[in-house]
Amino acid sequence: MKSNIALIKNPLIENVKGFHSNGIHCGLKNEKKLDLGAVYSDTPANTFALYTSNKFQAAPLKVCQKHLVDNIAQVLVVNTKIANACTGDEGINNAELICEEAAKLFNVKKIDVISMSTGVIGEQLPVKKINDGLKLLKPVINEKNDNNFSKAIMTTDTFFKIYGVKVKIKDHEYSIVGTCKGAGMISPNMATMLCFIFTDALISKDLLKIAFINSINKSFNSITVDGDMSTNDTAIIFSNGLAGNKEIDSSISKEYNDFCDALDEVTLNLAKNVVKDGEGATKLIEIKVSNAKTTNDAKLVCAAIANSSLVKTAFFGGDPNWGRIICAIGYSGSLYHPKDVALSIEEIILFKNGEKTNYNEESLKKAFQKKEIKVNVDLNIGDKNWTMWTCDLSYDYIKINASYTT
Amino acid sequence: MKSNIALIKNPLIENVKGFHSNGIHCGLKNEKKLDLGAVYSDTPANTFALYTSNKFQAAPLKVCQKHLVDNIAQVLVVNTKIANACTGDEGINNAELICEEAAKLFNVKKIDVISMSTGVIGEQLPVKKINDGLKLLKPVINEKNDNNFSKAIMTTDTFFKIYGVKVKIKDHEYSIVGTCKGAGMISPNMATMLCFIFTDALISKDLLKIAFINSINKSFNSITVDGDMSTNDTAIIFSNGLAGNKEIDSSISKEYNDFCDALDEVTLNLAKNVVKDGEGATKLIEIKVSNAKTTNDAKLVCAAIANSSLVKTAFFGGDPNWGRIICAIGYSGSLYHPKDVALSIEEIILFKNGEKTNYNEESLKKAFQKKEIKVNVDLNIGDKNWTMWTCDLSYDYIKINASYTT
Repeated sequence: MKSNIALIKNPLIENVKGFHSNGIHCGLKNEKKLDLGAVYSDTPANTFALYTSNKFQAAPLKVCQKHLVDNIAQVLVVNTKIANACTGDEGINNAELICEEAAKLFNVKKIDVISMSTGVIGEQLPVKKINDGLKLLKPVINEKNDNNFSKAIMTTDTFFKIYGVKVKIKDHEYSIVGTCKGAGMISPNMATMLCFIFTDALISKDLLKIAFINSINKSFNSITVDGDMSTNDTAIIFSNGLAGNKEIDSSISKEYNDFCDALDEVTLNLAKNVVKDGEGATKLIEIKVSNAKTTNDAKLVCAAIANSSLVKTAFFGGDPNWGRIICAIGYSGSLYHPKDVALSIEEIILFKNGEKTNYNEESLKKAFQKKEIKVNVDLNIGDKNWTMWTCDLSYDYIKINASYTT
Repeated sequence: MKSNIALIKNPLIENVKGFHSNGIHCGLKNEKKLDLGAVYSDTPANTFALYTSNKFQAAPLKVCQKHLVDNIAQVLVVNTKIANACTGDEGINNAELICEEAAKLFNVKKIDVISMSTGVIGEQLPVKKINDGLKLLKPVINEKNDNNFSKAIMTTDTFFKIYGVKVKIKDHEYSIVGTCKGAGMISPNMATMLCFIFTDALISKDLLKIAFINSINKSFNSITVDGDMSTNDTAIIFSNGLAGNKEIDSSISKEYNDFCDALDEVTLNLAKNVVKDGEGATKLIEIKVSNAKTTNDAKLVCAAIANSSLVKTAFFGGDPNWGRIICAIGYSGSLYHPKDVALSIEEIILFKNGEKTNYNEESLKKAFQKKEIKVNVDLNIGDKNWTMWTCDLSYDYIKINASYTT
């Protein structure tokens, strides 16, 4: 990281000026677990959202798009347990009812409220429970708490995810703090996940949007847990401009460049944490494809490897069956000459010139047993690169997913 | 089945006139298991092969293509345990050495020998072991045996796969018997599998080829176990014309139509057996997509559902989480209007008009617990249909694949 960008230890959404958050139990999850969260900004924030490309977009995403026509929002409400997806007109109406209640309680315009949901597909939201919950949540929104919002948005996540940085900009300082939930149904484009980024940096709407799109592409659109793309995936950035810095308004300025670096740092760390917490995951696999003809060719190879069940089980078992990686490259649909392709794992070159190299079997076995493993594929046909992250496929993935609704 | 087509009970390759087969242990597998098989035809047979679309085609496939320039073959040799894939020029040379030895032993031209391999990628074949094995195999090729060839080609298969029919054609009768191996790395186009079809029907080369391509598309290219396409997949049909029937030479004749039906019966049953024996599979799932705009759209939806780890684990757990099927349709890339899509499982309509129907939860739970489950998706936008078969994803898939090489 650059010297003017610093990690925030034990970050809170409240590290970002003017943002307040909390989470409560409103009765959706069992055992009094937190299941409803909200974030409030002291002033309306410039807000951009990126949505799943799944054609069965969930109801809250449709309502969010409607409310974000002006790219302004001030209140965010998120419930877990039920996704409000495949719920028809009733689902859309329910999402609107929640926004309406939040608008009344927080004294903002309804169009400035975003409501998001995550959980099981096909069930209708218990609106009364959620709206009753909001009545309890509003009075405590300014209360000090221990990342209750991040905890309230979890589904099968085993740990909550938050990451933040501070950036010095002349006489001022701004923060970027992001929080997300993930775990299963993770694949480009987007992971099954909700990701919320908050910043008090003053930055032009256009640059905020471009920086956000680029950052999400390199992070959340470059991770996969199981290749499934959900109906609810959404990433949203809120910028309330309260840091007091001179507006970042030039795409060629050092200030914009720093903002992008800081944002990338946040999104990439959150995305990697989603993979690490992938359902049943025991290992983080980084797949770097270099010297492709086009960026898309590099992505195709990354995705074929990252989504192969055979590759993922081999990593789980610590079984150095690298032939499965070659096999995945083979059906990726990417352009290359098979004889030019080189494969290495943790810097051990395994395959080159169309055949196995004379690598040390013991070193390879050790490499396969690491918790974080780097796979490098050199296509040797161009100069484009891409990196994706995936996890292994374990017994626990099956255990978690064989009985999710029941 | 038509009245002139009859199932062969307990079929043998020897049910097809002029074909002889056997299998032995040559030292590739442990515990004296059969690991080398051969088939010999009394006369050179018209022979067509279809290969994996994987760019890292294994060495034997390259040699096979060379030997089948004239579409004639008389001897087939198959070893298991080592795939001879990613083995460079040495691998190609090894496949040729095996063909050379077989040609000498069986007294045929080298170009009329096909050698196939299946197993681990990246290792060189122990040619001496295999060629010594062939010396033992040649003298017993005419000996009565209990499907030793079909057993010798198995890898992680839990049962051997053979299926056959007899067809009456005027005063004559011909047979079609097929055998295959599968289990893991199964996906269109083609499954990780080797499939060999033998017939004594006299049929023109052109019609044999067309019938074969169509039949494989509807069967082996419509199954998936784990979405991985292997480097070695091959399907080959051998027709020696010894049945004595008048040559089938018109594509609009009843005789050709019967041949296609009989062939489809064989390939479809073999393909379904590959799915049933999918690594760790406990259930066979049939996915029928109807009223798509194009056949390709129907295939896209079939494949998205068939390859979704979340859908497959739900079937394994008997968990009626049908939202995952809707989700897979959503990212399939197929053309349709979400509001027009209907989903049913075992004739229970679950989703229609953009929302959940009022189905009976208990009936659905029962449907999910069946051993063979039919999923129907109606896209309501055209008149094209496709069907694919997949299996569930279980703990045993992980167990089998986490330690395959070790």
